[in-house]
Amino acid sequence: MKVLDYLDIYKPKINETIKKIFNYKLDKVKAPILKGYYSELLDYFLSGGKRLRPLICIASYNAFKKEKDERIIFPSVGIEFLHNASLIHDDIIDRDDFRRNNPAFHYKFRKYHEDHHLKKMDKYHYGTSMGIIGGDFAFFIGLNAFSNNEFNELKNLKAVNYYAEAFYELCDGILIEMDMINRNDLIIDEYIEMISLKTGALIQKSMLIGAMYADAPENALNYLGNYGINVGIIFQIIDDILGTFGDEKVTGKPIDGDIREGKKTCLLIKALQNLDQNKRNELINLVGKNNITQDEINKVRELFKESDAINACMELVNKYKDLAKNQLEQIQQEINQSEFEFYENLLKYVSERSF
Amino acid sequence: MKVLDYLDIYKPKINETIKKIFNYKLDKVKAPILKGYYSELLDYFLSGGKRLRPLICIASYNAFKKEKDERIIFPSVGIEFLHNASLIHDDIIDRDDFRRNNPAFHYKFRKYHEDHHLKKMDKYHYGTSMGIIGGDFAFFIGLNAFSNNEFNELKNLKAVNYYAEAFYELCDGILIEMDMINRNDLIIDEYIEMISLKTGALIQKSMLIGAMYADAPENALNYLGNYGINVGIIFQIIDDILGTFGDEKVTGKPIDGDIREGKKTCLLIKALQNLDQNKRNELINLVGKNNITQDEINKVRELFKESDAINACMELVNKYKDLAKNQLEQIQQEINQSEFEFYENLLKYVSERSF
Repeated sequence: MKVLDYLDIYKPKINETIKKIFNYKLDKVKAPILKGYYSELLDYFLSGGKRLRPLICIASYNAFKKEKDERIIFPSVGIEFLHNASLIHDDIIDRDDFRRNNPAFHYKFRKYHEDHHLKKMDKYHYGTSMGIIGGDFAFFIGLNAFSNNEFNELKNLKAVNYYAEAFYELCDGILIEMDMINRNDLIIDEYIEMISLKTGALIQKSMLIGAMYADAPENALNYLGNYGINVGIIFQIIDDILGTFGDEKVTGKPIDGDIREGKKTCLLIKALQNLDQNKRNELINLVGKNNITQDEINKVRELFKESDAINACMELVNKYKDLAKNQLEQIQQEINQSEFEFYENLLKYVSERSF
Repeated sequence: MKVLDYLDIYKPKINETIKKIFNYKLDKVKAPILKGYYSELLDYFLSGGKRLRPLICIASYNAFKKEKDERIIFPSVGIEFLHNASLIHDDIIDRDDFRRNNPAFHYKFRKYHEDHHLKKMDKYHYGTSMGIIGGDFAFFIGLNAFSNNEFNELKNLKAVNYYAEAFYELCDGILIEMDMINRNDLIIDEYIEMISLKTGALIQKSMLIGAMYADAPENALNYLGNYGINVGIIFQIIDDILGTFGDEKVTGKPIDGDIREGKKTCLLIKALQNLDQNKRNELINLVGKNNITQDEINKVRELFKESDAINACMELVNKYKDLAKNQLEQIQQEINQSEFEFYENLLKYVSERSF
């Protein structure tokens, strides 16, 4: 089954479950500030997002089940909470004030401070503070997906461990990325390692959680996990391209953030590799600036084009597509045909996306 | 047994376990940036802290066990990770650059940025970002305490739920506190509700986790939980007093932070209640200022003294001590004498502390 058909079936159910988990909390709090805050957080969760990670988790459960059932939907949303929590904190770190064509979570509270003429704390610090708490809360409420569901404690505890592991690797990835921002001696392998952790781990764990709940055998988990990391790598390379050359209306976020923050994207690393010494130095100088102008951002974009960086990135995408296919073939006999098609289509879906 | 005697026995073992959990992570990472970062985080954890929460957890396990064993030490440190994680984020939110006579975690990285002359990101934003990740990581590594230990999955999953619940309540408390900063219409009941969540919940859950692992009966958990919240309330009232009138060398943190940030401490609420209209307005005006001077901070301290706010706070402490004792008596027959004494002594320890 194709990814979009799968989404048609499950996305409404995923969103219902997100609401259910939030409402469990909302019903318990009384103070108006808490009701208001958590409603705002629920709105943020429901305002967009592809729900790709819970979908992948559901498909990976179905892949190993002879007879389908819907018990997996509840735990599948755990990773979506983790993902959104990390986006809230990431947007603070990356100073991205918009996401999914909406204000970032911290930015909503910066506006709130302004609109309500609050006296104490400046609006920036207030927004950051409310964003820190929002991300923290979302990390924890995600754990709820792994209790009060229809599986036993052993499986739920395994899921909690995957959840924590996904998060460690995410932290590792973000830390390496922050370190790379202040370095110019980068090679593509280091970049791949970084995005395997930052983006691959969460997609991998979505698959492992789903398959684990369906009692998938150990060797299948390994192949599936490797496939998942490769999907994540492809996802992130495309994300890098869209982050600079995408259509803001479609991606929902500004297309100068990565350049402004000096992010060592695939584009930048490939461009530095392909340009001659002079232009290479020019590029290093531009992305190293702290207050880069719009003209300079456009110049960076030109240098990317001149170096044929997009094509170089797409070559990498194809390399990881082949690796992913290879892993997938190893488990073809062990999984249902419909989900094998889903996994095949997922590779196409993530490598050709424009959103 | 007295709290300090209990600490003598268990503190080294608690610290060993913290190291063990961290080293499990440190052994797995290779990148120098990660090794450096997580070592810094481990140093932060080991640089101070009373270890009161794991100790309370251990005592609450021992209270219900006929024969003592040390299996509880491993899971007991979970709450310490949660506590420290929240301190890292709190110090960013409260703009406290020092804690335990040491730089706050985010402040260490502000210094690092300065010392290494990093180009991208300003030092404040860099420090905040590294602090956000540090807190996030500590929240998650705390979950490790509830797996790979000597208890079964059912109990470990219950502990994870307590852990998450403690955190929700902590978030609720911090949000109410942030809301209170911009309000002057406060009553003491609201303050008590806020500190029950912000401080009480974590102490309560330390007890419940320990007692649950020891198979304590349901009704005993209720009494113990209520006792724990009252201990937390007392702890926080004393913290408020020490935060303004303590000895910086002993408390390890500046004594003007609460006033500067306009925190609605017990002192402030009691002072506002006791002062006449003119002085009340003067006090409101002073703590509402965004850039309060040292002279004005001293003036606030004088107004606190004039209103006899410390004594009013100590009356509250006594009230909650009585409530706590009452709850404790309900379970006296069900717990070991040595831990009954611990709990009695804990009330004295938290209400008379100067650190």
